Amino acid sequence: MKKNAVNIGVVGFGTVGAGTVKILLRKRKELEGKLGFPVVLKRIADLDTKTSRGIKLPKGVLIKDSSAVLNDPEIDIVVELIGGTRAAKEITLKAIRNGKHVVTANKALLAEKGREIFRAAEKNNVTVGFEASVAGSIPIIKIIRESLIGNSIKNIYGIINGTANYILTKMTEEGAEFSDVLKEAQDLGYAEADPAFDIEGVDSAHKLTLLASLAFGIPLSFKKVYTEGITGITPLDIEFASEFGYKIKLLAITKQDGDEVEIRVHPAMVPEKNLISAVNGVFNAIYVDADATGDGLYYGKGAGEMPTASAVVSDIIDIAKIIRFGGKAQGSGINEKSDLKIRKMEEIRTSYYLRFTAADKPGVLSKISGILGSHNISIESMIQKGRETKKAVAMVMMTHDAREKDIVSALKKIDRLSIVSGKTMYIRVEGSEA
Amino acid sequence: MKKNAVNIGVVGFGTVGAGTVKILLRKRKELEGKLGFPVVLKRIADLDTKTSRGIKLPKGVLIKDSSAVLNDPEIDIVVELIGGTRAAKEITLKAIRNGKHVVTANKALLAEKGREIFRAAEKNNVTVGFEASVAGSIPIIKIIRESLIGNSIKNIYGIINGTANYILTKMTEEGAEFSDVLKEAQDLGYAEADPAFDIEGVDSAHKLTLLASLAFGIPLSFKKVYTEGITGITPLDIEFASEFGYKIKLLAITKQDGDEVEIRVHPAMVPEKNLISAVNGVFNAIYVDADATGDGLYYGKGAGEMPTASAVVSDIIDIAKIIRFGGKAQGSGINEKSDLKIRKMEEIRTSYYLRFTAADKPGVLSKISGILGSHNISIESMIQKGRETKKAVAMVMMTHDAREKDIVSALKKIDRLSIVSGKTMYIRVEGSEA
Repeated sequence: MKKNAVNIGVVGFGTVGAGTVKILLRKRKELEGKLGFPVVLKRIADLDTKTSRGIKLPKGVLIKDSSAVLNDPEIDIVVELIGGTRAAKEITLKAIRNGKHVVTANKALLAEKGREIFRAAEKNNVTVGFEASVAGSIPIIKIIRESLIGNSIKNIYGIINGTANYILTKMTEEGAEFSDVLKEAQDLGYAEADPAFDIEGVDSAHKLTLLASLAFGIPLSFKKVYTEGITGITPLDIEFASEFGYKIKLLAITKQDGDEVEIRVHPAMVPEKNLISAVNGVFNAIYVDADATGDGLYYGKGAGEMPTASAVVSDIIDIAKIIRFGGKAQGSGINEKSDLKIRKMEEIRTSYYLRFTAADKPGVLSKISGILGSHNISIESMIQKGRETKKAVAMVMMTHDAREKDIVSALKKIDRLSIVSGKTMYIRVEGSEA
Repeated sequence: MKKNAVNIGVVGFGTVGAGTVKILLRKRKELEGKLGFPVVLKRIADLDTKTSRGIKLPKGVLIKDSSAVLNDPEIDIVVELIGGTRAAKEITLKAIRNGKHVVTANKALLAEKGREIFRAAEKNNVTVGFEASVAGSIPIIKIIRESLIGNSIKNIYGIINGTANYILTKMTEEGAEFSDVLKEAQDLGYAEADPAFDIEGVDSAHKLTLLASLAFGIPLSFKKVYTEGITGITPLDIEFASEFGYKIKLLAITKQDGDEVEIRVHPAMVPEKNLISAVNGVFNAIYVDADATGDGLYYGKGAGEMPTASAVVSDIIDIAKIIRFGGKAQGSGINEKSDLKIRKMEEIRTSYYLRFTAADKPGVLSKISGILGSHNISIESMIQKGRETKKAVAMVMMTHDAREKDIVSALKKIDRLSIVSGKTMYIRVEGSEA
């Protein structure tokens, strides 16, 4: 063992694990030069010790048995990169109870089981670093916890799932159907064989759970996050959005209003002059509005081997400095006793895009707008399109600010009208600020 | 004195000083809650103790004499916010020698006198925090030093002077002349009565000096930064830029290529599909390309009372944690023994926008392109415009990659031609990557 070394054990030698190992090995000298002590990769545990990851490892580093990492008294930091929530939770808790710091990229684990993990970390006076778990290379955890510490955060919204953004970008650029682009993305390896977590918004909700707790000091609230994916978005909606000057993005949104916090993931219409509307492909971007800084936007790669590994390594080094130079373990920043409540989705207020499929007859507009009006929904602008089918036209409206509850009950009534065919599409508008 | 308190002394109660004091007073409880110890504003020194800053201060906090701050054994951190380089240097060095940590927003001081200051800090084992000195609310110092620590940075370019960006934005939106917009900006208080530092690129060069040293570990090299301002930019160039699909921005650029580093501030043509081209008004944005993360972009307010104060407070808290919890003083991250050289401006390679004012005669194009060709400059595209004057036309070319030295000598020859009137305008192209 090198004198003064901080020793790292990696559990999970998949994509991000391989990236992390590459950085630790290739940048060993530079890191030692900057820190004044070596950060040593001591062990990697993975059930698959055969597949080549294109990395020449010192003999004996790669082993099958993770408990040989967790029980090694020389290992200071365990990097958990196996994913999933079951085995990952066991490994993480065991590492913590053995007095080891943990670095993880596992948002599902922290969003769903974070309470137990952060409590165990506090009890054992160790740090759980999770920069890599939200938006890969964008250092949003550090920005919220350290750079914005003098601020009260008002509003965060972002594109934090690259797969969904890739699909929406392709649909926008090519006028293509969701299912066709998804298939293409799967063939190219940009989307998983089971893409549900990405396209249904669950992955974004996991990450948003962490952001909301950090920003507003509330308990982890994954189960209370409103989550709606992009499977219902059609090329027609993207086209109408463009006519009104918007792009459709899957946004993760959390904002504080009085003693309530909104936490929601859903497709949103973003004004084209807003920078975030120009964030395309697999890129992520997070907008933060705080009381002192005002608008800020952070953009970068949200996933992938090296961008995520970069975040893992930044956590490793932050913790290594605490181990070697002293300091207090980083707390989670989450306050379990917060007085803030999660606002019910039906109580949110925003403006809405509504697309009706209606008979092309006189009186239809008056009927629809009558119902909207009686629900306190006023219309800002309207487009009517397409007489090709002869039977039905698409009628699109942008509303002024309205309450979700009113929209839902007005649409329920409207969709029951005989002049309306099919379910009315509605998409919330977000991000007029920047 | 509160038990466990970290005590702050502020020197300079101007705009940023007032913002810092507001945050320290208004967020006192939240900060104590997060940290577990109080951060106490103990003293503010300013020659002007009369003018109201709209803040109710405890009695005796505001004093005239800065040495009562610097010599107060209870004060742990001195916040230097007086600006300029003479008195600020004395105050900073005195604070350091008295064993106090320093937080400063003073880029001129650090870019020009940083060597002495950082050496003194190292000798006295104290931290000099300077997040606020570059790009206000954008935490670029922390991002480079901590978040990107596992990366080799390849290229940084950014808009880091809000006044210059405001002027270029207005010129672009209104087709207005530089001098008219400058006057308007001065009337509105967005530009100083003496705007030289902003419009000549000196302020950007100060900030870039710090970024280059952090990114590449080179000594502070302010005197070697190529610095060119925006006073020569005309509405005509902005219009041509737009026709070619570019915006003109004042960029601060530093990149490593082999064993050389480029450090330069000048107006640049930025492709319109690059996010940075959409950064308007007083906003700043910094693009960083690093080997693991790939492209990243950080956007926010680069100046002003509260955005800059937010950065000052983040430094105060980082240092307060070291004081209270232990840890090592942050080094400057600057390596005085670096082997890297600063590339001479004449050796840089990029593509160029060239605007000739030439006689509208046959043979002119062949003459000009002949000279360019003989200097290894090849043309990518060309526009010729305007026969209104009858005598001369504007002929605009975008070149392929060429060497600055070749451009300069080719233009020297071209400008001597009788068919060319006036000096040829040339603007470098940057930022095709993102």
